[in-house]
Amino acid sequence: MGMEKNGNAEGKLSEYLYPPEILKRLDFSKSPAKFHPKISAVDPGEDWMVVRPLQRSDYDKGFLQLLSQLTSVGNITRKQYDDRFTKMKHSGGYYVTVIEDTRINKLIGAATLTIEQKFIHNCSLRGRLEDVVVNDTYRGKQLGKLIVVTVSLLAQELGCYKMSLDCKDKLIKFYETLGYKMEPGNSNAMNMRYVKPLY
Amino acid sequence: MGMEKNGNAEGKLSEYLYPPEILKRLDFSKSPAKFHPKISAVDPGEDWMVVRPLQRSDYDKGFLQLLSQLTSVGNITRKQYDDRFTKMKHSGGYYVTVIEDTRINKLIGAATLTIEQKFIHNCSLRGRLEDVVVNDTYRGKQLGKLIVVTVSLLAQELGCYKMSLDCKDKLIKFYETLGYKMEPGNSNAMNMRYVKPLY
Repeated sequence: MGMEKNGNAEGKLSEYLYPPEILKRLDFSKSPAKFHPKISAVDPGEDWMVVRPLQRSDYDKGFLQLLSQLTSVGNITRKQYDDRFTKMKHSGGYYVTVIEDTRINKLIGAATLTIEQKFIHNCSLRGRLEDVVVNDTYRGKQLGKLIVVTVSLLAQELGCYKMSLDCKDKLIKFYETLGYKMEPGNSNAMNMRYVKPLY
Repeated sequence: MGMEKNGNAEGKLSEYLYPPEILKRLDFSKSPAKFHPKISAVDPGEDWMVVRPLQRSDYDKGFLQLLSQLTSVGNITRKQYDDRFTKMKHSGGYYVTVIEDTRINKLIGAATLTIEQKFIHNCSLRGRLEDVVVNDTYRGKQLGKLIVVTVSLLAQELGCYKMSLDCKDKLIKFYETLGYKMEPGNSNAMNMRYVKPLY
């Protein structure tokens, strides 16, 4: 039922997770990242590429297959995807951003900015970078840099006082070129896992 | 205006950020943390102590003064506090948990669990530990351990597959005794700060 309802609702399918206009306001000259050649969210370097918020219809554009290049995703039905999209939009604070190859209607890059509301620092906002992935058949197009800088500038545009990420050792240098720092004495990411993953 | 409205609404003032009943379901025997003597969220060791969700009325119970022992808070008005409380409750996913000394109606400990909704791992949930603080005049009562284990068990109860935290070097050992681990090759916390903090 959920599938049919959404399959027939074209207007709803093109629904964005957040207003796409925000991406036009990002000033890539504010980022310490160096692009050769220069590209940005509004001008990603190829006319068949577009950087935009996740859409409800992206279930059909390979969003979950793209994420599975990053980690296990599992068999997510259209209804599950749709429900999670709805919940994220209702909650606010979720800025899943994607790059589409419009020649083939497939997503080729994605990164998520989440925004946490705080009481400290005058009821501040803190951004977090999550779930960065780029289809590796598109190497050499600076897409990793492009998607991370896009959501990093987005966090600033939305008023965050800082943006945080956890990463593997081998990615530290990459993120340093984009302006992220290991803060001396305060750069430890710890985890507790509750169950053995079944996926 | 906001102040008067809230000051007169006793029912609203006692409003919890999340249902307090959840805390009764936590099984402290599931935590690797060792308590001497044994305490828990429902039995915190003293009859004048209570562990509960943040309430709207906690502006008057020293919540912000407690947070200022952790970091800069700034001058947050009652209306700002109230608005942030409302937004957190509306968004969902915010589990600010406190310890009150009911003899003096003051908060003496706090920790925040935030829950992030994901698509990966079968539309999973990821918990994060934030803004842990205990009034240091209450040393020796295991309150730091108590509040962290409370929100860690809460994350599990609410279905998170893992819980994460960033911490200073000197706190690694403490969190290890509670079940948190540095994952080899993948335990780096990086930050980008957007403006010089004015607070």
